[in-house]
Amino acid sequence: MKPLALTMGDPAGIGGELSLKAWLALRQTGLVFVALDDPERLSRLARDMGLAVPVQLVGDVAQAAEVFRSALPVLAVPLAAVPVPGKPNLANARAVVASIEQATKLALAGAVGGVVTNPINKAALYQAGFAYPGHTEFLAELTGATGQQIMMLASPMLRVVPVTVHASLRDSIAMLTTDMIVAASRTTASALRRDFGIASPRLAIAGLNPHAGEQGALGTEETTLVQPAIDTLRAEGIDVSGPWPPDTMFTAAARARYDVAICMYHDQALIPLKTLDMDHGVNVTLGLPIVRTSPDHGTAFDIAGKGVADATSLLAALELAGALAERRAR
Amino acid sequence: MKPLALTMGDPAGIGGELSLKAWLALRQTGLVFVALDDPERLSRLARDMGLAVPVQLVGDVAQAAEVFRSALPVLAVPLAAVPVPGKPNLANARAVVASIEQATKLALAGAVGGVVTNPINKAALYQAGFAYPGHTEFLAELTGATGQQIMMLASPMLRVVPVTVHASLRDSIAMLTTDMIVAASRTTASALRRDFGIASPRLAIAGLNPHAGEQGALGTEETTLVQPAIDTLRAEGIDVSGPWPPDTMFTAAARARYDVAICMYHDQALIPLKTLDMDHGVNVTLGLPIVRTSPDHGTAFDIAGKGVADATSLLAALELAGALAERRAR
Repeated sequence: MKPLALTMGDPAGIGGELSLKAWLALRQTGLVFVALDDPERLSRLARDMGLAVPVQLVGDVAQAAEVFRSALPVLAVPLAAVPVPGKPNLANARAVVASIEQATKLALAGAVGGVVTNPINKAALYQAGFAYPGHTEFLAELTGATGQQIMMLASPMLRVVPVTVHASLRDSIAMLTTDMIVAASRTTASALRRDFGIASPRLAIAGLNPHAGEQGALGTEETTLVQPAIDTLRAEGIDVSGPWPPDTMFTAAARARYDVAICMYHDQALIPLKTLDMDHGVNVTLGLPIVRTSPDHGTAFDIAGKGVADATSLLAALELAGALAERRAR
Repeated sequence: MKPLALTMGDPAGIGGELSLKAWLALRQTGLVFVALDDPERLSRLARDMGLAVPVQLVGDVAQAAEVFRSALPVLAVPLAAVPVPGKPNLANARAVVASIEQATKLALAGAVGGVVTNPINKAALYQAGFAYPGHTEFLAELTGATGQQIMMLASPMLRVVPVTVHASLRDSIAMLTTDMIVAASRTTASALRRDFGIASPRLAIAGLNPHAGEQGALGTEETTLVQPAIDTLRAEGIDVSGPWPPDTMFTAAARARYDVAICMYHDQALIPLKTLDMDHGVNVTLGLPIVRTSPDHGTAFDIAGKGVADATSLLAALELAGALAERRAR
């Protein structure tokens, strides 16, 4: 099995600490990753936090795989300034971006099985000239991806895909179209088949309104937008159901009837996912030519450098990326 | 402790079955209720479903309390037509309404400790001339309630109050005001103090947008509507926090920090409540002069008459009404 590439994320956030903790948790499991990071800062961080993690600079991925059992292998992405926990530094923005670029290059070349990204601080990167709304759009550009990329959040209890994501609730409703629902559903169905090993994925499509609109009394988008998407998808042979009343579609009994919930807006997807399982949520980008996952949290500047960051979500992201990469390699 | 009054609900729905099952579950617990229903139809239902429930016509609440251990006491509200499961009948609409009226009268007179309502079918009642959007508005009228009534959903894991309720998501956003958030929060804080025995209730106010608007990048309502409400409530000495990012405020750790979540729209409140605990959700109407609860589900015409209805939510509604009535009587 190929190693995974783990990016640095914002060096003022909890990413470095999580990388160290992930190595401690995974070193003897067979799952191998290489950090695209600054080896000196990781060594310093390990020492400061009292984590017994030997950090080893490596020259390539093959060497990383060899040393993984005895040290955290790092492909060097030197920082311009010593990072201060909680204080993002424009001087380091270039390295944050370079880490993502190099990880992606390794994945495109087939040297690693996939990319796992530590959290970045978008505001800091924007100031440094980064021109993408987030990781996903940058990765799409780097990989020359065609078509639509979508975010899936996956935990052991639930998979969700928000059709609209980072917009106000008002704008999310205004921008929602049948085509968006269809495109997100197609990408999801195809990814579940190829990467998740689900031969006939069952998609549950949420309504937008309370009670899924109650036959028009509480909103019309179910009739005008969602049902036409369902009809189109069904005609293509995709196993879809809905539009479901949003409040009852995430109970244990309801979840047993589908493999993924296609949601109309960010919180319709994220509330049930995080309410059910805050720690094990993994962000998976579907529609890229490479495997890419990330933990389901941000840079957490408020707790950076304190040694209290929880690596559960990053571990889940590494494990899921490993499983997806393995399935794709077959 | 005073008995509770339990209404009939739509006789073509699962209400009657639930009333019978509730009596079986509660007959020896000390919690007593009287059904405002048609005794013949309940006897017939018990026989048809093989439920060993002796049904006894009583003349008043005192007699109901006496017989409760040995039979389900019923104050007669005769039906005009024999109900057919799953088929609401306009001829019975008058009795459905009368059951609510009589239960409310008993509560206002202090003969019962509170009213628990079985689900009604609003469409059927509208056709029969019922001019209220639902139970709550009708009860407000019957009790001469002043001020705002609000719906709280309570389960052992979470209490939520949706500030906007039965409107499309688009309309819910458009109608949301600071005053509505303030009024709902005041009513909630006062009810938690008086009826729930929480001396200093902690209210968590949700944001409207993803990430609570992310400083305006994902919506402005947190700044323009929610924060002013928080400021007003805080100035009144109410313990409020927020605006919270909606997706992370319902985790176990977050829930431990508040007594009730004030939510901006129906599904923001109902998704976490039902996802966490589908069966034990109880609807409590705050802001009425009487205690009123109801189960958190509808008439379920699709399973009516089949003997498979789950009385868990009605039992929870009866138990909560009993607890609230007891506290109010102190």
